[in-house]
Amino acid sequence: MNFYQKLDRAVEKNNSLLCIGLDAIAPRQFAFNKKIIDATHDLVCAYKPNSAFYEARGAKGIEELKNTCEYLRKNYPHIVIILDAKRADIGSTNAGYVSYAFDYLKADAITLHPYLGKEALQPFLDWVDRGCIILCRTSNSGSGEFQDEMYQKVAQNVAGQWNANNNCAVVVGATYPEELGIVRKIIGEMPILLPGVGAQGGDLAASMRAGLNSQKAGLIINSSRGILFSQDPRAEAEKLRAEINLYR
Amino acid sequence: MNFYQKLDRAVEKNNSLLCIGLDAIAPRQFAFNKKIIDATHDLVCAYKPNSAFYEARGAKGIEELKNTCEYLRKNYPHIVIILDAKRADIGSTNAGYVSYAFDYLKADAITLHPYLGKEALQPFLDWVDRGCIILCRTSNSGSGEFQDEMYQKVAQNVAGQWNANNNCAVVVGATYPEELGIVRKIIGEMPILLPGVGAQGGDLAASMRAGLNSQKAGLIINSSRGILFSQDPRAEAEKLRAEINLYR
Repeated sequence: MNFYQKLDRAVEKNNSLLCIGLDAIAPRQFAFNKKIIDATHDLVCAYKPNSAFYEARGAKGIEELKNTCEYLRKNYPHIVIILDAKRADIGSTNAGYVSYAFDYLKADAITLHPYLGKEALQPFLDWVDRGCIILCRTSNSGSGEFQDEMYQKVAQNVAGQWNANNNCAVVVGATYPEELGIVRKIIGEMPILLPGVGAQGGDLAASMRAGLNSQKAGLIINSSRGILFSQDPRAEAEKLRAEINLYR
Repeated sequence: MNFYQKLDRAVEKNNSLLCIGLDAIAPRQFAFNKKIIDATHDLVCAYKPNSAFYEARGAKGIEELKNTCEYLRKNYPHIVIILDAKRADIGSTNAGYVSYAFDYLKADAITLHPYLGKEALQPFLDWVDRGCIILCRTSNSGSGEFQDEMYQKVAQNVAGQWNANNNCAVVVGATYPEELGIVRKIIGEMPILLPGVGAQGGDLAASMRAGLNSQKAGLIINSSRGILFSQDPRAEAEKLRAEINLYR
């Protein structure tokens, strides 16, 4: 089963495009994540731990991340694990990051920078059963500095030559619904990881109008802080899933 | 003492622009690195461990990297430590990578992707005593896919607004001496990290003609495999330092 198939099944099973970003810096990150996961596993299509929040604590944090991924795989193997690591090095060095993401953590997909080009990222792209999610238009306010000129070309190339193994997706922030619509036209049915809803102020309704594919899917809609730190994470996730499904 | 000053002093003390990339995947990486470091510390201006080679082994590898950085700081505090991590996320998330690189590993500098723009990288740029080395023209054969259009703008922006704290540098591969000359004209005296000599086939003489600044310095010339896996790493480093100094 490849990344697209696993994602489709998770979306269908839980009737959800919601992804929860596991981005807390807690003294016990695995224990924190476990509570969130147990409370929300039937409401999401994916979990997305961001490696930065674990690396911040060094080797100890990496253990917590590994435990989190192992727990997910063992207990909820149908849910997609996206390692948000935003990596990219030259080819031979990427083998190290591939080992980290796909061998050690056994993530289903990883986020990647496009700047070095397809040739450098081939060690990731070669894993036909894992997803490569390429940064296209990021959610931050200053993303236009280089992306204004580049994001359409990134979308074109990723949807074209990069996707020979049918395992690519792109990242577009919910803070840029207009660009999201342009990207959707370029890439066809390919999944888009959509961060920026919630704390970052992205517009969910506008993003869904612009970003859904012809199957009324094709978006992985991430929320982190808005769910993790709410009084009742399950209620918050249920609410967001319902709101998302209203727009489908 | 800021990054530029520490680099200048290390270059002067060891009369060297040579940087050794600590990029071995050995069963005991710290022990391997310690031997290399003890044999070469008076021949280099910097060591550059690439995080990918340690992350490949998970938490255990991160420990080996931490031990390597601690050993360097304790025994050879005048040598620059460059964490080659090629990171970049949105602002609030970069705080995690800052903790990893500057708090946990206590590196003097880190390599970064430009794609998200200056606004996102501010948490790195704010560390006035640490270096931010931005990917500009990478050494891989396929780097032109996006960089043909972008590398000059990256060089301009990094040498301009990004460098308000006088702590920036750029990466240009020795495999692109022509582009290196163009970058040098754009950025003035700023240091350039130059990978791609040796195994990758970069042209040292052409790179030094194109890349030296007006002080006959401003290049951090990296070699990894060519030194690490030679019969006699010290002799190999001495040879390369002498060759570099011939061109200065």
